[in-house]
Amino acid sequence: MSYIFGTKLKVSIFGQSHSAAIGVTVDGLPAGFAIEPDELRAFMGRRMPGRGAHMTRRRESDEPEFISGLVGNVTCGAPLTAIIRNEDARPHDYDRFRDVPRPSHADYAAYAKFMGANDIRGGGASSGRLTAPLCVAGGICLQLLRGEGIRVAAYIVRIGQVTGLSVDPADVGGDDLRYLSGADFPALDAESGARMLAAIEDAASRGDSVGGVIECVATGVPAGIGDPMFDGMENRLASVLFGIPAVKGVEFGNGFGAACLRGSENNDAFAMHGGAVRTRTNNHGGILGGITSGMPLIFRVAVKPTPSIDMEQDSVSLTRREGVRLRIGGRHDPCIAPRAVPCVEAAAAIAILDALLCRRGEVL
Amino acid sequence: MSYIFGTKLKVSIFGQSHSAAIGVTVDGLPAGFAIEPDELRAFMGRRMPGRGAHMTRRRESDEPEFISGLVGNVTCGAPLTAIIRNEDARPHDYDRFRDVPRPSHADYAAYAKFMGANDIRGGGASSGRLTAPLCVAGGICLQLLRGEGIRVAAYIVRIGQVTGLSVDPADVGGDDLRYLSGADFPALDAESGARMLAAIEDAASRGDSVGGVIECVATGVPAGIGDPMFDGMENRLASVLFGIPAVKGVEFGNGFGAACLRGSENNDAFAMHGGAVRTRTNNHGGILGGITSGMPLIFRVAVKPTPSIDMEQDSVSLTRREGVRLRIGGRHDPCIAPRAVPCVEAAAAIAILDALLCRRGEVL
Amino acid sequence: MSYIFGTKLKVSIFGQSHSAAIGVTVDGLPAGFAIEPDELRAFMGRRMPGRGAHMTRRRESDEPEFISGLVGNVTCGAPLTAIIRNEDARPHDYDRFRDVPRPSHADYAAYAKFMGANDIRGGGASSGRLTAPLCVAGGICLQLLRGEGIRVAAYIVRIGQVTGLSVDPADVGGDDLRYLSGADFPALDAESGARMLAAIEDAASRGDSVGGVIECVATGVPAGIGDPMFDGMENRLASVLFGIPAVKGVEFGNGFGAACLRGSENNDAFAMHGGAVRTRTNNHGGILGGITSGMPLIFRVAVKPTPSIDMEQDSVSLTRREGVRLRIGGRHDPCIAPRAVPCVEAAAAIAILDALLCRRGEVL
Amino acid sequence: MSYIFGTKLKVSIFGQSHSAAIGVTVDGLPAGFAIEPDELRAFMGRRMPGRGAHMTRRRESDEPEFISGLVGNVTCGAPLTAIIRNEDARPHDYDRFRDVPRPSHADYAAYAKFMGANDIRGGGASSGRLTAPLCVAGGICLQLLRGEGIRVAAYIVRIGQVTGLSVDPADVGGDDLRYLSGADFPALDAESGARMLAAIEDAASRGDSVGGVIECVATGVPAGIGDPMFDGMENRLASVLFGIPAVKGVEFGNGFGAACLRGSENNDAFAMHGGAVRTRTNNHGGILGGITSGMPLIFRVAVKPTPSIDMEQDSVSLTRREGVRLRIGGRHDPCIAPRAVPCVEAAAAIAILDALLCRRGEVL
Repeated sequence: MSYIFGTKLKVSIFGQSHSAAIGVTVDGLPAGFAIEPDELRAFMGRRMPGRGAHMTRRRESDEPEFISGLVGNVTCGAPLTAIIRNEDARPHDYDRFRDVPRPSHADYAAYAKFMGANDIRGGGASSGRLTAPLCVAGGICLQLLRGEGIRVAAYIVRIGQVTGLSVDPADVGGDDLRYLSGADFPALDAESGARMLAAIEDAASRGDSVGGVIECVATGVPAGIGDPMFDGMENRLASVLFGIPAVKGVEFGNGFGAACLRGSENNDAFAMHGGAVRTRTNNHGGILGGITSGMPLIFRVAVKPTPSIDMEQDSVSLTRREGVRLRIGGRHDPCIAPRAVPCVEAAAAIAILDALLCRRGEVL
Repeated sequence: MSYIFGTKLKVSIFGQSHSAAIGVTVDGLPAGFAIEPDELRAFMGRRMPGRGAHMTRRRESDEPEFISGLVGNVTCGAPLTAIIRNEDARPHDYDRFRDVPRPSHADYAAYAKFMGANDIRGGGASSGRLTAPLCVAGGICLQLLRGEGIRVAAYIVRIGQVTGLSVDPADVGGDDLRYLSGADFPALDAESGARMLAAIEDAASRGDSVGGVIECVATGVPAGIGDPMFDGMENRLASVLFGIPAVKGVEFGNGFGAACLRGSENNDAFAMHGGAVRTRTNNHGGILGGITSGMPLIFRVAVKPTPSIDMEQDSVSLTRREGVRLRIGGRHDPCIAPRAVPCVEAAAAIAILDALLCRRGEVL
Repeated sequence: MSYIFGTKLKVSIFGQSHSAAIGVTVDGLPAGFAIEPDELRAFMGRRMPGRGAHMTRRRESDEPEFISGLVGNVTCGAPLTAIIRNEDARPHDYDRFRDVPRPSHADYAAYAKFMGANDIRGGGASSGRLTAPLCVAGGICLQLLRGEGIRVAAYIVRIGQVTGLSVDPADVGGDDLRYLSGADFPALDAESGARMLAAIEDAASRGDSVGGVIECVATGVPAGIGDPMFDGMENRLASVLFGIPAVKGVEFGNGFGAACLRGSENNDAFAMHGGAVRTRTNNHGGILGGITSGMPLIFRVAVKPTPSIDMEQDSVSLTRREGVRLRIGGRHDPCIAPRAVPCVEAAAAIAILDALLCRRGEVL
Repeated sequence: MSYIFGTKLKVSIFGQSHSAAIGVTVDGLPAGFAIEPDELRAFMGRRMPGRGAHMTRRRESDEPEFISGLVGNVTCGAPLTAIIRNEDARPHDYDRFRDVPRPSHADYAAYAKFMGANDIRGGGASSGRLTAPLCVAGGICLQLLRGEGIRVAAYIVRIGQVTGLSVDPADVGGDDLRYLSGADFPALDAESGARMLAAIEDAASRGDSVGGVIECVATGVPAGIGDPMFDGMENRLASVLFGIPAVKGVEFGNGFGAACLRGSENNDAFAMHGGAVRTRTNNHGGILGGITSGMPLIFRVAVKPTPSIDMEQDSVSLTRREGVRLRIGGRHDPCIAPRAVPCVEAAAAIAILDALLCRRGEVL
């Protein structure tokens, strides 16, 4: 199950960067749910290029066509399939990458796996373009979750050497989350957002790229979701998140920071709060033993710098078995993080909804 | 599938801290493989308590009894099941934790999930004790992998504020890895190992605990293993690693460090090396687009401080719905990281072997 | 996993009878395989309507558009997705079936499952129309299997009270199978084929329908395919075959006939044959203990009579909670069996190819 | 997933006929359910040998030891594992079957699959002995289903040439089902039961064996269970049922009989019955389009004659590659059907409970 995620909710992605279309099938959505197309369009728009210097300029309409699973806008219990046509499917100058793999792209690994039969055009099935159908699926899940009182928001907390604010999870409420999704640059404060944007533009001006860290918060998740061991909430979230190209790390709550702490610092005391069991701090990121605690989920993902840079790099010719110099050319996002923000929300929504639908352990 | 991991290799863990036994079933092992029991025993011994002040003193023999799947010591194609009796199964004073959950343990989350029916004794099915059957399965996978020329080694690179050496992955060879597994304290250099041990003993002397970071390297993994998107090598490894209690973060190659870098710094140039395609650096940790590149796999996991500390903490009474003070008592590892080292190797071996057995994309 | 079948090969069907399109995604196909489009078209043509009085006259072009997974006609390791537009998507008079379920159709069961949100138009996602994408997937699998020397052929052995020839499995060879797929009526002998056709026409002339039995043979399947217990070759085949609407029974080898026999009659003696181990008879249908024996696979499926008949029937009004009389109207196949023949071949090919790709138990 | 069945409920069987133990792990059972051990013991007793001439005399206590998943007798949400020791594990004279496969046993197929590494002793992992852990899992599921008002009963309707009564499904109620499970010979009427028993004894007296057909009814299953296409109730039931050794056919409702009928004969008219939607007849066996209709489930399984007979048979020497004569010897059930009756109930209960836990399509 390479391109399929989920237990009760099956999200199946297909397509390549330059195939006729890309798309997604979501099996297991509750029937009778009315999808809001405008809201989905707005969500999809957040991963669209062209909003500022930090975005690539490839023209993608990214308007999904729903070809099954709905009657009108209402889910009918059948698998929902949406496709997005690849308008920009003309043959680029990709053939040379078949022989000379781009550094830190999937070209060589895919070549080794598929013995050269892999689609090299635009990264083929390893392209970031496949996050568009991920966002279609995740955007629908977000709408379903909202009906359950669950909200998800991601934002950038680091670009290169610039760090921004991390939300104090105890203060995160619905209004804050709504604000975030409307922000011009998805950081928690405008000032550090501006500095992050400057760092991206600086890298771009040198033909270089830069990495970043995205933080994500989900509020309203009830206690008791997720299964111990291999199907814990952390495992499930990581399984989807590492499906976003360029993600190289995932941490929950204090994450790697917890390694530096003592138990007396990292433990979260329980307390009653308005009749409910809560923790005073949220170092655990809302997950204990793989199961949600009722506190907001908090996690961060590390996004590596875009591997496509406008500099000459060392590579090899696979046929001639010798080193060659390679200049990739073309236009590329100098930083993946901004467009990855809605993808992280989408991934989180998919994992959370699936876990919710898997609720187990209850009386029949 | 909560306690089951894998696609071709199905590893299914069962048991609770104080049930009659714990164990594991491994379905899908190649038939005809002779298991080396002594080697497995030595591997299991590395997660055993009692080797120094940093280990808890619960007496566990941890000798697995193989009840199926073998003829003699040779796999026969049937599911292999091993059980380990819980000798220390007497009723402790665990009942009070049913009402007063221990901070940063799974008690409350499991209570919410199973509506109070969960086994509270010793952490029940969320106990670190379940890493013993994980190590049985992983220890066997390690033996199989070695036959394929694949070696896996983990070691500690941080304890609290003390950092140790990280191996330069380009230099990791078979001899280094063998050395590591025999070390008294599993760090790459004796000096920082001694300081890490001191940090653990210092925390223990205050009734406190401390976290750590484990690094793991796998050499000899061929290029082309792992599937794009949701079944990438990163997704698979993370799925098992987050099944180890106390793991709160996983990163590959440069991981979160990549977020601070530019593309020109993080990219790994390709070069011919003895007739083979290699990268000059290994910032990608041996995985590109979810698929192995033929370079050593490198990843790190963050281990939180042991939540059981010998201090009074704030909690709540679930029945009286009010705050109470709790002192856990008993003896506990002041640091989980040392015993988690072989668990990380076991988890890695399981994920790698499964991916290897799933090789796809080839001609039939 | 409702619309998804397979372990290594994942076949995922989507669409409804009157959604914009129907389709299939096949993940896990070996990369580098060149699909023969003409051959696929010919195969798809065998389930098309309009070839004689026993076929419905709905105009379906059924020409699949491949939107991903190929470079040219060659598989590239990415999920292959094909869609078929529903040209005949105009709103029929289906609304009345929402209130008055058609006897022996899925209308009422789907209504109960999806609380009335199911797509009622043309049977929605329970329509026989979804066998078109099944045949796209199966048609490709048949081409792959042929490259492995495996051939699959199905034919009709019963229509109502008329029985036809069953092939003596020991005699089935490649030539016989090729002949069958070109036959006008898919029976093993022209004479009983003509009588079967007459039985269908007789039922049609009375506004009635009739059931049938399809037999399927697969030659060239090597010994050792399929896994014991729940993933046996019988289990796998049945899992796909019962996905074909109207199939109500599946039997292997002697099947229900074996219940009438003694062991001395039903056992298949082993014998050497040209240096290979064979059985003298094939009462076991090529599967022993869930694993293939190297003999041809033989199985039969029972197809119920088309539930849509041109007669007034008793049903109920779900809103008024009272009995009503219902006349369905429209044109329908008087017998499903002829068009189900290629569907059975497709189902068999999918199950066999998946099992082949799952080969386990070998040395690594 | 060879020895694992289910989506929400994961039933994982392990063991060989002569391994130290056999057993089962059931993951996903609702927590807080009190198992009745006496009832389970009585259920297990129904598949025990020694009750009359038609049963083999191997001494098996078959008392399961629950080693995890319970606190007392109550499920706690952790995977439930039960093991049964193989007391009769002494080395029989099985080695000769490694070279000379027994006709119509799995010996040769398993040899081909596992390249000779398979456990040959007593049929290894293909032994009917593995239905004991299946019955442990199924017996627990039966108890859970009863709490939901669902009852399952199987009985024999054919032994060789002797046919017995099939229940008129419209008349099946709780009392009838209870009666059946207490019957001496599990047939619906004592007279045909006596003739069936005579047929078994006659075969046994000649050193031969005989096949049979088991019918199974499940009442109280609500409408709307099971998923269309590949996860239909028929697909799910068949997946488990073909896991019972010797089962060679499965049919639902009229099954193969439907192939002989016209639509006007086979269709089931809807009618209101005490305020509920029912069908007047139950030719569909309670399943339409893979989804339950609210009518009793009815299905039949074909059981082949025991392949072990007390006669000389033809086989081959795998090493010498030549034909040899083989006499199996030992004592064997002359008919598998009687002991398979509770296994069919167990299989049905597992599939139904899993489908019930998978209920999908509802509003969240």
